[in-house]
Amino acid sequence: MRIPILKLNQYLLISIQVELDDQTALEFQEDLLQKIHVEGSSGVVIDLTSVDMIDSFIAKVLGDVVDMSNLMGAKVVLTGIQPAVAITLIDMGIKLDSVPTALDLEQGLEKLQQELEG
Amino acid sequence: MRIPILKLNQYLLISIQVELDDQTALEFQEDLLQKIHVEGSSGVVIDLTSVDMIDSFIAKVLGDVVDMSNLMGAKVVLTGIQPAVAITLIDMGIKLDSVPTALDLEQGLEKLQQELEG
Repeated sequence: MRIPILKLNQYLLISIQVELDDQTALEFQEDLLQKIHVEGSSGVVIDLTSVDMIDSFIAKVLGDVVDMSNLMGAKVVLTGIQPAVAITLIDMGIKLDSVPTALDLEQGLEKLQQELEG
Repeated sequence: MRIPILKLNQYLLISIQVELDDQTALEFQEDLLQKIHVEGSSGVVIDLTSVDMIDSFIAKVLGDVVDMSNLMGAKVVLTGIQPAVAITLIDMGIKLDSVPTALDLEQGLEKLQQELEG
C-alpha cells in the first residue's frame, strides 16, 4: 500500500493515515521525492494527525525526507503531531529542529506560503 | 486499508490511489459520510486521477456517495476522471448526470467554491 500524495497547485499534500511500517515509510520517501521532481513542487505538507505512534526508524525516515526535499528545493511542513508522538520524539532525543511544524493542514499551508514568500 | 480523507478548511479532499475493490469502496462511503457529519463539511472533492478502471458496482457506490453527501448538505465534485473510466461509464449507461466534475483537484476546489457561492 502506497501513501497517496495529492497535488494542490504548486504544493503536495500528504495525510498519513496508515500505520507506518518500515517498508511503507521508505516507499513513501521514494514516492514523494519522485513526485516533487515530476511536478516541480515548491512546498510539501505532511499531515501526521492520524499517526499515534512513531519509532526511531520512522522518525529518521521522516527527518531524512524533509532534508532530501529541501535539497531538491521543496520546503516541507509537518502538521498535526500528536502529544504521544511529540513525547516519543523528544524522549528519543530526536528534535527535528530544522523542520517547520503547524497544528493542522490549513495552518501548514499558511506556514508554507509564509516560508516561501519570506 | 482505508482511503485517507483530508480536511482543508470547510472542505474534504480525497484522492483515490488504490484499486477500489467492493469492500474498500463501501468502507470509503461510510468513512466519508461519517467525516462530513463530524466535521460539518460543506464540500467534498473526490479525485480519481489514479483510478484506471471502474466497474458497475464501484460506479454505483460513487454515484450513491454523491447523492448521500448531497442529502447531508455537502456538495461533491469528482475530478480527474480518466478517458478509459469515462468510456466505461458511458458504455455501461452510467451518466452521473447530476455530479459536477472537473479536470483536477485545483479546478475541483474552484468549482466547489462556485457551486457553494452560486
